[in-house]
Amino acid sequence: MIDVARVRYIHPDQLKQFVRDVLLGLGASDEHAAITADALISSDLRGVESHGVANLWRYIRGLQEGWINARPQYRILSQTPAVMRFDADAALGFATGVWAMEKAMEKAGQLGVGVVSVRNSTHFGMAAYYSMIALKRDMIGVTMTNSGTLVAPTFGRLSMLGTNPIAVAAPAGGARPFVLDMATSVVPQGKISKYDWLGKAIPDGWVIDETGNTLTDTHKALHNLLGRKGGGLLPLGGEGEDHGGHKGYGLVLMVEILSGILSGSLYADLMYPKTPDGKQLPPDTGHLFMALNVSAFRPLDEFKASMDDLLQRVKNSPKAEGHSRIYIHGEKEFEEEERRRRDGIPLHETVVQNLRELTAPLGVKMP
Amino acid sequence: MIDVARVRYIHPDQLKQFVRDVLLGLGASDEHAAITADALISSDLRGVESHGVANLWRYIRGLQEGWINARPQYRILSQTPAVMRFDADAALGFATGVWAMEKAMEKAGQLGVGVVSVRNSTHFGMAAYYSMIALKRDMIGVTMTNSGTLVAPTFGRLSMLGTNPIAVAAPAGGARPFVLDMATSVVPQGKISKYDWLGKAIPDGWVIDETGNTLTDTHKALHNLLGRKGGGLLPLGGEGEDHGGHKGYGLVLMVEILSGILSGSLYADLMYPKTPDGKQLPPDTGHLFMALNVSAFRPLDEFKASMDDLLQRVKNSPKAEGHSRIYIHGEKEFEEEERRRRDGIPLHETVVQNLRELTAPLGVKMP
Repeated sequence: MIDVARVRYIHPDQLKQFVRDVLLGLGASDEHAAITADALISSDLRGVESHGVANLWRYIRGLQEGWINARPQYRILSQTPAVMRFDADAALGFATGVWAMEKAMEKAGQLGVGVVSVRNSTHFGMAAYYSMIALKRDMIGVTMTNSGTLVAPTFGRLSMLGTNPIAVAAPAGGARPFVLDMATSVVPQGKISKYDWLGKAIPDGWVIDETGNTLTDTHKALHNLLGRKGGGLLPLGGEGEDHGGHKGYGLVLMVEILSGILSGSLYADLMYPKTPDGKQLPPDTGHLFMALNVSAFRPLDEFKASMDDLLQRVKNSPKAEGHSRIYIHGEKEFEEEERRRRDGIPLHETVVQNLRELTAPLGVKMP
Repeated sequence: MIDVARVRYIHPDQLKQFVRDVLLGLGASDEHAAITADALISSDLRGVESHGVANLWRYIRGLQEGWINARPQYRILSQTPAVMRFDADAALGFATGVWAMEKAMEKAGQLGVGVVSVRNSTHFGMAAYYSMIALKRDMIGVTMTNSGTLVAPTFGRLSMLGTNPIAVAAPAGGARPFVLDMATSVVPQGKISKYDWLGKAIPDGWVIDETGNTLTDTHKALHNLLGRKGGGLLPLGGEGEDHGGHKGYGLVLMVEILSGILSGSLYADLMYPKTPDGKQLPPDTGHLFMALNVSAFRPLDEFKASMDDLLQRVKNSPKAEGHSRIYIHGEKEFEEEERRRRDGIPLHETVVQNLRELTAPLGVKMP
């Protein structure tokens, strides 16, 4: 179990400044460093630690090794007043994501919808971060990305696809907005790592082994997943078709097509390429961003009133035995963010130690 | 089990003509009758019987009782060159769906994307039918609809939302297109009916009872579902959050928002309203249609080559123990359609008998 005595609470602004300094030191522009820091700290504030500062090593390594580009030049490949495709030149995915969603919103502001497809990007962290930008302009935001090979197709026994998340944010009135952010696999890889760290066995129906059968040995599961030694995460719906595993697998493919194929990025098991001598190349990740301008469809106040009513109706409906609350997507994260803005972001001593060791050579001091 | 001796094979063209004649007799226009017949027979050809002619009673009743409008006037409520919202005036949902997808494609032909939101529609059958129209113009088609109250939210014990399907079709080159069509519940209601008909118990994790616990008594499940007596279908991912039930529930809500709320239709448990004395009113269903014009993003031949490669890579990946094939979404249905175009559509004698009794008073003879 987590030893609370070994947790340090750090003020979000201090942590943000720290991340900025690290990235500036590695050659990122003011803007890209600030956006990346904000996105990482937003993840930690929302309790999505798997996409927070604990992940900073990845971006440091990318910038140091050159497979993330500190000074990218975006190149627009096609454009209409409603859609755009561009090459992100291996920029920090966070900066790319914000730029792309803003372009989608500009277009949606004019025409009601904007769709921006991105090729040659890098890891952008928490997908909800981009969809939620649309909320500020009372738009619906949709974000998808393909990702590293971890998920086995239904009836397969080797990971061929990513956990390919979908994030959808829709504004409400008095109620909090709807913010869905989900890997299309039954669980993300981070959940297996967490179970491994806690020394717990994973439940049936999360991971299959190299024969294609479900396995509960967490350590073996993680070893297989990370080394791509056979088996993989199951898609949402689990093993086979009885509980809809083929639907989850369909959503994984849908995201692969809409983000990887439409943009002309790498896809499936081609992602995260390496040179023959094992050096990592730019991952060539593909994203899709869409903004729908609510008021181009329907008067905004009517939409918001209906949203409030829908969400209240569902929340207030009778609870299952043993449960006292029905959640709307995003609610847990909004409440966590309130707590953490007040109390600080809890970082485990191991994470603090790792960050210290990682950033000391860069001359940046962990707060 | 199904007694094959009690199955009749009927030529699709004969069945289509029959459905047309029935609908024309009930006052539908040539165009609406022809589209509806084609959509129903397409479902039967693809093996999706739950949305085929066995469902004709529903549309007959709607037209007879007036909650489906045989001679509707569509009313455009808002429009830009890229988006549109319209009121379908309770038309046959099939005709509405085709008209809406064609408008979305017109817009996508100009601008790369078209989004059409529909309010006050009626049941449109198989969602894939509309998404697949986009394939003819090398576009990606997306279709969503809200639907009658059947699904319980995670931690709830009463159905509050529909099985809210999503259908996505994307063109390929030599390979067959990708055609995903999925209820966002773990199974559609039709599957429970089928198990009931076969006298089989349903597996754990499909349906919950009035206490919110999973139940396997098929007859009770169906009784509860149809009468809304408590409990409901579980969202994709099943009970609770351990296997991602909250993700399926999130997809159900997403479809409710994008089809029901954005269009200004009814939603959640308000759908399928009745008068105080129990007469059915127009269901006021909401749909969303989107077309993405591939060539506005990326040269079409490149897209198709990547699609072929992606789908082949996944199909050719190693198989799980006991399985010899990995499917791409839509493949089973394309193969079924080939068989049925050759052999005819198999209708169980019970279905034939029901259709006979239903249509005899209309003076139309079942082939």
